[in-house]
Amino acid sequence: MSRVLVSGGGGFVGVPLLRQLASTDWEIHALYTRAHPAAPLGVRWHRVDLLDHAAVSELVDGLAPERLVHLAWCTEHGRFWSARENVIWVELSLHLLRAFIRRGGQRLVMLGSCAEYDWSAAAAPLAECASPLAPATLYGTAKDALRRLASAYAEQQGVELAWARLFFLYGPREAPGRLVPSVVRSLLAGQAVATRSTAHVRDFMHVEDVARALVALLDSPVVGPVNIASGAGVTIGHVVDQIVQVTGRPELIRPGALPERAGEPPRLVADVARLQQAVGFQPRWDLADGLAATVRWWEEQDGDQDELYLCSDRALPRGRI
Amino acid sequence: MSRVLVSGGGGFVGVPLLRQLASTDWEIHALYTRAHPAAPLGVRWHRVDLLDHAAVSELVDGLAPERLVHLAWCTEHGRFWSARENVIWVELSLHLLRAFIRRGGQRLVMLGSCAEYDWSAAAAPLAECASPLAPATLYGTAKDALRRLASAYAEQQGVELAWARLFFLYGPREAPGRLVPSVVRSLLAGQAVATRSTAHVRDFMHVEDVARALVALLDSPVVGPVNIASGAGVTIGHVVDQIVQVTGRPELIRPGALPERAGEPPRLVADVARLQQAVGFQPRWDLADGLAATVRWWEEQDGDQDELYLCSDRALPRGRI
Repeated sequence: MSRVLVSGGGGFVGVPLLRQLASTDWEIHALYTRAHPAAPLGVRWHRVDLLDHAAVSELVDGLAPERLVHLAWCTEHGRFWSARENVIWVELSLHLLRAFIRRGGQRLVMLGSCAEYDWSAAAAPLAECASPLAPATLYGTAKDALRRLASAYAEQQGVELAWARLFFLYGPREAPGRLVPSVVRSLLAGQAVATRSTAHVRDFMHVEDVARALVALLDSPVVGPVNIASGAGVTIGHVVDQIVQVTGRPELIRPGALPERAGEPPRLVADVARLQQAVGFQPRWDLADGLAATVRWWEEQDGDQDELYLCSDRALPRGRI
Repeated sequence: MSRVLVSGGGGFVGVPLLRQLASTDWEIHALYTRAHPAAPLGVRWHRVDLLDHAAVSELVDGLAPERLVHLAWCTEHGRFWSARENVIWVELSLHLLRAFIRRGGQRLVMLGSCAEYDWSAAAAPLAECASPLAPATLYGTAKDALRRLASAYAEQQGVELAWARLFFLYGPREAPGRLVPSVVRSLLAGQAVATRSTAHVRDFMHVEDVARALVALLDSPVVGPVNIASGAGVTIGHVVDQIVQVTGRPELIRPGALPERAGEPPRLVADVARLQQAVGFQPRWDLADGLAATVRWWEEQDGDQDELYLCSDRALPRGRI
């Protein structure tokens, strides 16, 4: 039995990832910072402030995990692209990586992003080795810089590092300000929905499939970058239409009522040959069913939505950055 | 008058840099970790462990320097190319950068390296913007990753960051194991000198010129990478010959007696158009005079050579890495 440590286990990806891991025979340890996350049985939670280097080292030294899935990062909607915290997350991630390797860690998955690619060259599907990298945001630059150094360091130390490049996610517990939950919740509440250009093509994957892909990647021998995505491009308008198919109220949609964001490319779709062939992963959800299930999940929620998810960026008070 | 903070001020580059700065009207503050360096008048020294994040933040908060020259890094000869400490120096450098920017810092110089370039494409002079980057060592990868993130962060924060890519240095107080001091000291002691291939072409600059170039860069408005080098390629054999011209004893030279290092390219020479035209810098030392002066400096030394220089990597006990 292998011991796996998960950072960011209380987050949007972390919760379904821990559910997936709970069905394996691994011994699961997860980190949290503030409130104890509701989580599947069998997960052993450890409270630690990732900014506290000594505490992180002590915890990793005590656990000696063979595997690590490092999910934690600042992800506050609308802020994380340019948030100064991106720099500190690189520092924290390198510190955690060093502690993991020093204590005998053997294999880890870290999270990258489609924001590492050159978006001006994204007309064709983005492939891990063939597509140029040129992050245009501080977030993308931080992920890119971390990947370069962490990969070289892990390789030198004989440790396997897989770098999961996430594209666009949706599903239960997504932060309310993001596209899918904001459209779903507005329509369910009978409120008008203003969107940006609906013609942009993006690559969406249900967060449960993302979690399954990450577990498959952790359990594979693949190292280096791997796109975690569906490989299917759909327009934003199609996503909104699929939601309306479930909620009704199409008259509430106001396409193009919000201004375009600068730097948004017309198309961001992943080449998923490496995920499908090297990792051997296939998603289970198609978009229509996944969005319908997401709508049903939101229908079942009530009360303070902020209690539904724990963003890892809350772990970092801004005054300390 | 501008306040400038220098890390690594007791090192090979730091000492002549502080001498250069002492002739300006800047208020100079320098960091050291262990022994108080012998240094020019007018420098205010501060003892701080760069691993101690809280202490670094407190010191920078108290000083509020407008400028920063960050020289400190692990540079132990024969070890630094692959030393694990390279990772921690990225973390420390990002932490120092954040503290500097948060406290109102306006312009800084950080040290890069010719090891950031793709050495397999180094037949032509290496130019900052035109030559491909592909570091082959952990040291080069760490510098490359730091530059990418630090540059993006500084630009976003409206802070000017110049990235000084050093090539090959020589001069007084160089670590005894490196090429020039090892040849000089052996010949002065009447001992045989075994060298590797003497045909490799490298770009050497006297450390006093490097220091002057860094001060010129700090005082310029130039941002981004700038090669700090002579632009003149000379063979290792020529360097050895120039030393022998001063010391005599050519019969002690055993060229090629040491095995080649893997990955050593035949030619590493800088394109210095940016240094000469954008920064407006010209070196003062030619190689023959610079090596002759270096021989004379070593002739004047006696006693424990280890006292002559302080390598910044000594600041980091290996057990803590």
